[in-house]
Order: sequence, then C-alpha cells, then structure tokens
Amino acid sequence: MKTAIPELRKNRIMEKVPAEEIHQRLKKFQTALATHNFDGAFLFQNVDIFYFSGTIQSSILFIPTQGDPVLMVQKGFQRVKEECPLKNIIAVNGKSHLPGTLHDFGIRRIERVGIEMDVLPAQLYLWLAETFPQCGFVDVSGLIRKQRMIKSLYELDQIRKAATILHQGYMEIQGFIKEGVSELEIDGRLGFIARREGHMGILRMRGWNQEMTYAHVLSGESGSVVSFLNSPHGGSGNTPAMAQGAGFRRIRKNEPIGIDYGVGINGYLADQFRTFVIGDLPPDLERAHRCSRDIHDLFAREAKPGVPCPDLYAMAKEFARSAGLSDCFMGHGEGQVRFIGHGIGLEIDEFPVIAPNFEEKLTQGMVMAFEPKFVFPGKGVVGMEDDYLVTSSGVERLTLTEQVLIKVKP
Amino acid sequence: MKTAIPELRKNRIMEKVPAEEIHQRLKKFQTALATHNFDGAFLFQNVDIFYFSGTIQSSILFIPTQGDPVLMVQKGFQRVKEECPLKNIIAVNGKSHLPGTLHDFGIRRIERVGIEMDVLPAQLYLWLAETFPQCGFVDVSGLIRKQRMIKSLYELDQIRKAATILHQGYMEIQGFIKEGVSELEIDGRLGFIARREGHMGILRMRGWNQEMTYAHVLSGESGSVVSFLNSPHGGSGNTPAMAQGAGFRRIRKNEPIGIDYGVGINGYLADQFRTFVIGDLPPDLERAHRCSRDIHDLFAREAKPGVPCPDLYAMAKEFARSAGLSDCFMGHGEGQVRFIGHGIGLEIDEFPVIAPNFEEKLTQGMVMAFEPKFVFPGKGVVGMEDDYLVTSSGVERLTLTEQVLIKVKP
Repeated sequence: MKTAIPELRKNRIMEKVPAEEIHQRLKKFQTALATHNFDGAFLFQNVDIFYFSGTIQSSILFIPTQGDPVLMVQKGFQRVKEECPLKNIIAVNGKSHLPGTLHDFGIRRIERVGIEMDVLPAQLYLWLAETFPQCGFVDVSGLIRKQRMIKSLYELDQIRKAATILHQGYMEIQGFIKEGVSELEIDGRLGFIARREGHMGILRMRGWNQEMTYAHVLSGESGSVVSFLNSPHGGSGNTPAMAQGAGFRRIRKNEPIGIDYGVGINGYLADQFRTFVIGDLPPDLERAHRCSRDIHDLFAREAKPGVPCPDLYAMAKEFARSAGLSDCFMGHGEGQVRFIGHGIGLEIDEFPVIAPNFEEKLTQGMVMAFEPKFVFPGKGVVGMEDDYLVTSSGVERLTLTEQVLIKVKP
Repeated sequence: MKTAIPELRKNRIMEKVPAEEIHQRLKKFQTALATHNFDGAFLFQNVDIFYFSGTIQSSILFIPTQGDPVLMVQKGFQRVKEECPLKNIIAVNGKSHLPGTLHDFGIRRIERVGIEMDVLPAQLYLWLAETFPQCGFVDVSGLIRKQRMIKSLYELDQIRKAATILHQGYMEIQGFIKEGVSELEIDGRLGFIARREGHMGILRMRGWNQEMTYAHVLSGESGSVVSFLNSPHGGSGNTPAMAQGAGFRRIRKNEPIGIDYGVGINGYLADQFRTFVIGDLPPDLERAHRCSRDIHDLFAREAKPGVPCPDLYAMAKEFARSAGLSDCFMGHGEGQVRFIGHGIGLEIDEFPVIAPNFEEKLTQGMVMAFEPKFVFPGKGVVGMEDDYLVTSSGVERLTLTEQVLIKVKP
C-alpha cells in the first residue's frame, strides 16, 4: 500500500468562508422560501447559522424571503464582524430585543415563518410563539437540508482536505496496530493524528440524541455489538453511558478490526471505514469483505444523476442477497439498519439517504458516504465505506485509501 | 512535581450502574414529582434517561408519580435488558405505539406531565401535545437538574476516577510540551492519553448550541480570544466552524499555556485547568496566577453547606478587585462571564452555578468545578480550575494535581 504524503500541514491558517459562498447560499435559500410561500425563516441552530453566515458565535439569524438577513449576536460580536460578510449584524443583549431589532431593520410583516422544528428546543419554540403571536411557524429544516445536500466547489474542497487526513490516519495507524493493543489506544491514536493534522475536533450529527466519537475501533465480536446509533455497527464502547465505539478489548490475530474514522475541516466532514487484520480473516468474513468491494464497484458503475436513491439501495441489497449475505447485510438482527449511504457535509447525517424510503434522485453535487458492511454475530464487522461526489455523468470517489482489506504485519 | 501512577488501567471492564442506585434516584424523583403536583414525566433526552435507567439506548422513559416507570425501547433492546434494572421494559416500533403501551401498563390518568422543555425538539413537543391532548405539559428539567446536583457515593467514585486520568494527563503532557509544538498536537496528545486510560469519548453539555472538545490548549494570545462558549476562555480553534480550543499556533517560551482538560468515566466528568509555562511568565500574569491560587484557598476556607452561591461569587470577585484584577477576572471585555464555578456530573454545565443570580445554597453532595481565571488581552489566560465536593462541614478537593504554575523544562 502506497503512502500519500498530504500537503495539508504546509498551509495552516484560519480560513474564513468566502463571502461570495455565503451570498449564493442565501440567494438560493430565499428562492426556496419564496417558492414555499414563506415570509422568512428564523434560524437558531449553530450549524445552520454557520452555513448561512460563516460564523458559529452565539446568534439568531433572520432570513427574510426578500431583502437582507439580520444576524443578532448574543456573544462574540467582534469575531462575528471578522468572520461574517452579512450587512446587518447587530449585538443584542438577550433575545427579548429580537422583535424590536427586526422592526428597526424594516422587517414588519411576517406571517408564515420557517423554523428548525427538528432541533429547536421546545422552550425556544414556545417563546417564539408567544413573542410573535401573529406568526404561523412551519418546519423549514427540510428545505435547509435539501439545499445543503448539493455541495459547492468550496464545500467539496473542504471535504477533500478532510479525506486527505483520513488517508494519512489509515496509513499511519498500521504502525500502531499490534496484538494486545486495546481498541481505545488505537482510537486515541487516530484522534491524535486527526487533531495534529487539523481536524476541527467534533463530528456533528443532527439527529436527536445521536452522538459521535472521532472513530469507531471495533475488533472481533465488538463489531457485532448493537448500539442505539443509527449505524450498522455500534460497538460496545467502554461504558453504558456512551455505548458506542472503542472499548477495553485488546486486538487479536486473524479477526476483523473495523475502523470507522471521521475528520472535519472548516466544518465539513469526511467519513470512511476500512477493515484491518493481523494475519488472515476467516473465509466467510473475507468473502463478505470482497462482496462489499463488489457493491462499491456496482455503485460506481450505476450511480449517476437521475437514479433514485431507493433503486441504489435495492440493487445493493439484491447483490448481497444473491451472495447469500442477507442476514448480515448492514447489521444483524435488531441492529440491521435500512440504509446503505448518507449525505455528509457539516453534519454526518445529511441528505441524501440511500434508503428504500428516501425518494430523492441523485443530483450533481451531492456528496455521500457509501458503506456496504456485513456484521457477523460474535465475529465482527467487515466492509468498506467511501465518500463519493455525484458528477455530471456518474460518481467520483473522494476518499483516497485503496479499496482493499488492509493486512497489518504481525 | 510528583507523578502519581493511577491504578485505573488494571481494572478495565464495562461497569453497569448499580440497580440500587437507579431505584434510589427514581424514588427521590417521584417524591419531587408528587411535591410539585405532577402525574408523571416523559423523558426523551439520552442523559436524563441514562440517569434514571442505566442505559442510553434509544428509548422513551415514562416515570409516573406513583408506581413503576415504563421504558419504551426503539433500538438496542437486548442491551437495555442487560444494562437496565427496571421492571417494565418494552420494545416499541416507533413512537406511535406510545399511548397504547402506557395504557397497557395501567397508566391512564395523566393530566399534568413533566417534559424536558430545555432540550426536547419542538417537533417532539408538538407530537406529544397532539398525541396526548388531555395533558398539560410543564417543564421538568429544573427538577431533574436539581436532583442531579447532589451526587451519590457511586457518582462521586466515577468523578474521582475521571480526576485520576486528568492528573495522569497533566503529568504525562509535560514531556510533550516544547517550543514549536502546536496547540493542536498537545490537544491530540491529551486526547490520546484520555482515551487510552478509559475516557468515554465525549464531554456532554446541556446548553443549547454548546459543544466541547476533549481539551482547550491556549497558548499566549490564543487564551484571550473570545468565543461563543460560556467560558472565560474560548480560544480561536482552527476554524470559524468550531471556533474554540486549540488552533494552529505553536508554543513559545515565557508565555502562559492554559490547558483545560475533561475526562468522562461511566458518564461522569471531571474538569480541570492548569497553567503551564516554558521559562517564566511576565510578572503581571504570574501575580494573577497567584491570585487564582489565593481565591482557591479562600474558597476552600469559606465554602460549606449553607453558604449561598452568589456570596461565593461576590467574595471571589471582591478579592480580584482588591488585587486590581477586575478587568481581567473571568474573561476580558465582551468575553467576561458572570460565574466562577459550575456543577459537573453527567454534563459539564450542571447545577449549582457559582454566580450572582443562582440563588441556591451549597449542600452536602454537590460537586463543582471552581475556576478563578484571569484573561489578559493579547497575552493569554492564567489560573487554575479544580473540582470540589461539598462535605458536611466544608469542601474536599477531588482533582489531584498540585495547585501550582507548572514549569516545563525547556
């Protein structure tokens, strides 16, 4: 396996989101708001605010369907001024000043207003309903998530940088994987490499109660432990309080070591999975691993703009069925999940979802993690996960690591 | 400085929350529900569910004011059965089965019901309101947080274990801090040590939009960068998308290196801060660092059951004022925060808050991080943070590292 030396470490400065990027996003969103008869949208969640303003400081963002957005800043005002290209930025002392502030900016007639119903706490929702009794509040998260599903070239660049670090990590960790080393030590080492190379230090998920560590390191039977996480492999973790990812188990020979690894650059995540082994896999697991590779090949041939997500899921599922691997496809028993891929971007659980009930068609600019995996009860998890960009005519793989079972020298 | 070798690595197995612990917590909570005229409470948040059930698998927990709670499990049923001592555990396929399930368990007359208004998404709140039209929903988070404020001996043990790992990290990192090493590398190394020793892999915060990395490593002027985070020191981070903690800056001689460090064991966090320096601090910063130590001494003398939290804050603030350090006490300019300590437990931002507007008195069993810090614009942050238990007659320090400025050999 060749080692690519990433160029990333040479150029290490804080980078702002380009102003033009923000303006394009706002324009596109305002068009969507108009199409769906909104008068505007109140955004409260840090990730959505970052997407539309370039800053994550404590703020509330009002985007009117027409005219200039208003960013009301509760903490970090100087920093917002440096990071955010919006015209209307104002420091507010607590949210009670919100109605007056909007009024001052000429925003007076708002009746149908979008809010992020999936993440906004009930308390804030009730405060909004009381403060703006004339408003009808409607969930706007779907519109935001559909817009964020299509990546710009700038966003793509960030994901490519994150993918470079993942590859570096997968190369470097091979010198650290040895019999007797614990899953937690490998996890910690991967975290060290990621941070050293510039990982932002968090992998965000939008889903309620969903959380993520920097990596999952699942050796042998750990890979078949079911978890609350919406993922084919959860892992035990080292406590019921976290209940996912690496645990105290020590690595052995001739068993799969599944490593899921995420890195974020300027907010944007790349997400990959590779199977490692010291020695050889049992034949049934090795065969399933080849099947994962075959499903990647099938995906790379068939995925292109216009193909419905459910078709891609069905195709992969049928391929696994014909290989006699239905029982362990994307989990086992109650741990089986009904998707094989998910969008990535500022959050790990973005659109599209490659799933039977996600009726969207592939569109140029989508970026997704595609993860055919097989879970064998008591034996572990095998497979590969890579990130793909939908191009004008097909898909391009963004993650850099060779699509093979990684054999570590004993 | 002496190095204590922690015993933690010898005994590394998954530990469940003791059944008796869960039963005691439920009993106490049911008494509080009765006192406040609730018929019961619906809990949805993973941390609250873990506190009352011992599991974090996807579930909804209904705690009636009288009788047995019902845990309705959406994913991870087998695991819940292993981890959770409740009598009524039932697998449900989606939340539409909730009303029928409660009915089956004899829970029929519920009118005044507590929910976690501060964290529950609006969507779930509206679903509840529609599904149980006869219920009046009232915020119960305050009751939960007040109960969780007082720690049991079991909870205290977990925090002590976490504190042991923090000390190990602070000792070990001294061999890694050198001129030219980046903040991110030190952060990554601290994360590696924490995970290797058993850190659960996340530091949870309850506050809306609040997030935390494993550590903050803030050298020189980084320590005075204001952030959205409700903390005296935010740091730049390495991207506006995260905007806190370690950045690309490289360590220099004769400047403060502030390291905030958190570790979680079985859900419970310890949280500490120490100031490191290669060489010597500028005299004004060294003086402020001694003032932080003096405020700790004052706290250790004065804090005991019955003392109101605002008094402790006022005392510390007055001490800083008399030392001529008001301007940089707990932050600078718009970064100044109005607290000097916070409860720790399953979340970093627990009760009590040592703040002017938090009217609670110290009570035996409270555990808090006390963090007198001073921020000098352009120069950095100095001070110390330690965790304290309120005992029957005073406070006991739980964190183990000596209360000194840590001088690293060049």
